Amino acid sequence: MKSRSRVLGPRLRVFLEPDFAIGPGKAEILQGIKETGSIAAAGRRMGMSYKRAWNLVDEMNRHFRAPVVEAAKGGRTGGGAELTEFGEEILVRYQRMAALAQEAIADELEKLMDELGDRSA
Amino acid sequence: MKSRSRVLGPRLRVFLEPDFAIGPGKAEILQGIKETGSIAAAGRRMGMSYKRAWNLVDEMNRHFRAPVVEAAKGGRTGGGAELTEFGEEILVRYQRMAALAQEAIADELEKLMDELGDRSA
Repeated sequence: MKSRSRVLGPRLRVFLEPDFAIGPGKAEILQGIKETGSIAAAGRRMGMSYKRAWNLVDEMNRHFRAPVVEAAKGGRTGGGAELTEFGEEILVRYQRMAALAQEAIADELEKLMDELGDRSA
Repeated sequence: MKSRSRVLGPRLRVFLEPDFAIGPGKAEILQGIKETGSIAAAGRRMGMSYKRAWNLVDEMNRHFRAPVVEAAKGGRTGGGAELTEFGEEILVRYQRMAALAQEAIADELEKLMDELGDRSA
């Protein structure tokens, strides 16, 4: 969370069902698992407990038509996790949507930023 | 909050400063004040305490170059609040950004929704 909130600009959350959304947090978890091969490590670098990270993964696995994350090959002993091909596709799709949204609002965002107070004054 | 999460599709939050964002909650508070003439009433219909609603308004008033909400004329006695002209402009700008983002991601969103599981099966 901390890592993301330092970057200015849009955060996109998309409700796919009334009780299920994908947003920056879930995308960052997926990206983290892809890079670290571990749900715990992915959560840790976001300052998130293992339980919370696992819950986010589990929620996605339950709502999408196929799992986005599964135990890594040989993971029974090592406890590793990996993105499935499907999970990778979901991540890319979310990132594409976020990029499209960012591009679409860029001009308006600049104007909105001009409305901030000058706090050094 | 409940009211919003029932509608599928995007929710846009925009960080304008590292510690200041505008998103669906602040937009709904502004809209609510516009319609009800009261911070308390605007918060109430979102299931939000007066304190929380007031804090969101105060945060915007402190970060933007001008107040977005002020005591209604004669509000000293009645306790009413109203959007300033500036606040109205900020609300419209946010709504425009949200609409642009929604339009930009519409096709991708439809594809992502196709990836949901069929839970009636």
